[in-house]
Amino acid sequence: MAGASLRLALFAPHGRMGRAIAQASAEDGNVEIVADGGDVLVDFSAPAALQASLARATSLGTPLLIGTTGLDAGVDAEIAEAAREVAVLRAANTSLGVALMTDLVERTARVLGAGWDIEILEMHHRLKADAPSGTALALGEAAAKGRGIALAAHSERGRDGARLARKQGAIGFASLRGGTVAGDHDVIFAGPEERLVLSHRAENRAIFARGAIAAARFLKGKPPGLYTMRDVIEAQSSARA
Amino acid sequence: MAGASLRLALFAPHGRMGRAIAQASAEDGNVEIVADGGDVLVDFSAPAALQASLARATSLGTPLLIGTTGLDAGVDAEIAEAAREVAVLRAANTSLGVALMTDLVERTARVLGAGWDIEILEMHHRLKADAPSGTALALGEAAAKGRGIALAAHSERGRDGARLARKQGAIGFASLRGGTVAGDHDVIFAGPEERLVLSHRAENRAIFARGAIAAARFLKGKPPGLYTMRDVIEAQSSARA
Amino acid sequence: MAGASLRLALFAPHGRMGRAIAQASAEDGNVEIVADGGDVLVDFSAPAALQASLARATSLGTPLLIGTTGLDAGVDAEIAEAAREVAVLRAANTSLGVALMTDLVERTARVLGAGWDIEILEMHHRLKADAPSGTALALGEAAAKGRGIALAAHSERGRDGARLARKQGAIGFASLRGGTVAGDHDVIFAGPEERLVLSHRAENRAIFARGAIAAARFLKGKPPGLYTMRDVIEAQSSARA
Amino acid sequence: MAGASLRLALFAPHGRMGRAIAQASAEDGNVEIVADGGDVLVDFSAPAALQASLARATSLGTPLLIGTTGLDAGVDAEIAEAAREVAVLRAANTSLGVALMTDLVERTARVLGAGWDIEILEMHHRLKADAPSGTALALGEAAAKGRGIALAAHSERGRDGARLARKQGAIGFASLRGGTVAGDHDVIFAGPEERLVLSHRAENRAIFARGAIAAARFLKGKPPGLYTMRDVIEAQSSARA
Repeated sequence: MAGASLRLALFAPHGRMGRAIAQASAEDGNVEIVADGGDVLVDFSAPAALQASLARATSLGTPLLIGTTGLDAGVDAEIAEAAREVAVLRAANTSLGVALMTDLVERTARVLGAGWDIEILEMHHRLKADAPSGTALALGEAAAKGRGIALAAHSERGRDGARLARKQGAIGFASLRGGTVAGDHDVIFAGPEERLVLSHRAENRAIFARGAIAAARFLKGKPPGLYTMRDVIEAQSSARA
Repeated sequence: MAGASLRLALFAPHGRMGRAIAQASAEDGNVEIVADGGDVLVDFSAPAALQASLARATSLGTPLLIGTTGLDAGVDAEIAEAAREVAVLRAANTSLGVALMTDLVERTARVLGAGWDIEILEMHHRLKADAPSGTALALGEAAAKGRGIALAAHSERGRDGARLARKQGAIGFASLRGGTVAGDHDVIFAGPEERLVLSHRAENRAIFARGAIAAARFLKGKPPGLYTMRDVIEAQSSARA
Repeated sequence: MAGASLRLALFAPHGRMGRAIAQASAEDGNVEIVADGGDVLVDFSAPAALQASLARATSLGTPLLIGTTGLDAGVDAEIAEAAREVAVLRAANTSLGVALMTDLVERTARVLGAGWDIEILEMHHRLKADAPSGTALALGEAAAKGRGIALAAHSERGRDGARLARKQGAIGFASLRGGTVAGDHDVIFAGPEERLVLSHRAENRAIFARGAIAAARFLKGKPPGLYTMRDVIEAQSSARA
Repeated sequence: MAGASLRLALFAPHGRMGRAIAQASAEDGNVEIVADGGDVLVDFSAPAALQASLARATSLGTPLLIGTTGLDAGVDAEIAEAAREVAVLRAANTSLGVALMTDLVERTARVLGAGWDIEILEMHHRLKADAPSGTALALGEAAAKGRGIALAAHSERGRDGARLARKQGAIGFASLRGGTVAGDHDVIFAGPEERLVLSHRAENRAIFARGAIAAARFLKGKPPGLYTMRDVIEAQSSARA
């Protein structure tokens, strides 16, 4: 599924995602990793490096893909500022399947009323240190947006103990850890005597690298603005229509 | 979740669904089963009875809900004809969860390209005689519509044997039977190293009766036209917005 | 599946499980609920009533089925004491499927080494107040027994936050709540690049009443001793062989 | 998890499994692939090569691991004959998780009566040409053995059409195909209002190579006889006890 030619400049090329993107680029056949310049800058490094990435993107006038997770809310304004000058796409998860799932979750939460309880379950490998996963939280944000509520005021995390009956309108989270699981996510809408469940299964982490390349290809040549993975899937969908 | 007052006239009130709707009506508190007339006619009887139902609806000028399954394609024109005179809603499955799932499946199939294989799995109790289920086929139709293809030309059913590698663009079906399962449906989008799965679980058959009442409530007072369960969920969603 | 004739004396006949057992008895056709005496005493009441149940069983010399949950560890000795005089069966969950699953979990944990992480997931309806469920904890005990470790020293519950990478040998628990789910339990053995999962799905709570009747039928005429649901399924299995 | 030193002689070292075993051997650190001789002969080649493999094993007096699938029933006698002279282990699937699952399925089928329907579901990548998978059939054989029936007389495959209500005592099979799925298997025991499900998920095919090495390590130095993967897991389990 190679697409138009693309040159990527990676921050942290020797990190886990940097190497994965380099390998996926080699398999793509139409993507080149370059030391400087490039059609798109790609940052999957660490929160501390964000300011430098934004500065470089705006000074070069080059689009920027931000895949770094664990960014605190304080950086939102800085990212929005940079997006006035260059195209910026920020994603907690660059899998196309997860991007579409996020959209479906928001839509489902909008259509189904408060009689349907929302629960989010994720499973990852034994070494993952944070719970819930960033992707689970992003799915929760989408559900909350669909419902027109604020996630922070309605999330139920780490259930353990007595007297815990679910609060009306809550969005619950649960995390499993074990083995080498690349990433499973389920969003469960539990209504009266029926359930609707949206699930994503990642077989390995290569899908995140391939999705990053798809996102970078989307960003190439785009006007300034703040984009998401959902714009990428919309564009792919339109291109086929 | 009682709504506005509603009077239903049932064809086959003593059939399995007739009795289930009578019970759900009693629980609703705002629905009355009447012998004749009524705000909406409800037909969950048998294919042979359809002509009589259509004739009665048009002669009375009363909306008609058709939940009968196993209708052959020949009746489509007759239903469309009746829908020029009265409101008609036809549904293979009156669960609200399934109705929404059908919409999500079409949307997902539209967005994801041919690199994602579509498989539909269902499980029902040991006595169910037909496979795949009518709901599985309706989900397949939604997937095919999203892809812009004809289901009949692309479905793969009853896989068993050798030399069966999947055809490009196929929509596969598989059926499990056992125990007292009320109805499980999964639509699997299997892409390169990731899967997106939409699932519905019915705990018992009461949900179909409650969904039928929601559909009838939607139909009451509606102008002529052909409606679907997706119109019902859209209306519920708008009412909340 | 009616078996030999059986007379049950219920503590708390008007409680939720008391009524369910009465209904299942009526459906069984060979079980009679009696006010006093009976072949077996059945207690699904409340922890505070346990002493009275034990006293009555021993004074009458009648077997006792204890389905009460939430008993604290202090009663173990009292139950063992009574079991020297009459047959006593204690079960956190009287479903035959769960009883067998518990046995399979212990066996699997014994065979698979420490390279396989154990996680236990359960989902129940929105009103359930305690987490994890009593059945999830019983499954955890079975896993710990199979591994030859103490559950209390190895359980990880309520994961939420950072720096939570799984401890070697831990048994993790996660709880979902929503809708009207009667009870789903999964025990996941996650090894290097493969998973073995044992799952139970209860469609409704009638199965617990039917399992209680099977347990009582097993207890009728049994000599003193402490029995479990696994003895019931072993006996059923032997009876068929 | 490296174990005692082991020298393997591979038939078809350049085939898919040959290369996978070579790679897993390199990762193991204590396994050497040798051109001739070896502690154990390993045949994952093709049915036509079996006679040559058996002849070589018996003439050298070296244990033989047979992982070839698609063998017809006619070879059973030849394999049994060779197993009188050397140790022979034959496996349709060399994953340790599947081996244990097979044992659990047989046990579950033995304990649960005919009121529980057995269904076997598998999903594999889009290129797999045969359905059901060899592993699904082996699981079906285990279930039939537990029930004391012959699989051939009770299997229901490729359900599609009308008038298909489940036969009493049947073992059903269903196959899904799509994407890059390495191998999912579920054995479903569907009873009255409850289900017990045993599932295996392979994340990739490396597990089969690692399991083959574990099987070969088990075979090294074993006396003549016909062994299975269940002997391997029993031995691992005993070694830990």
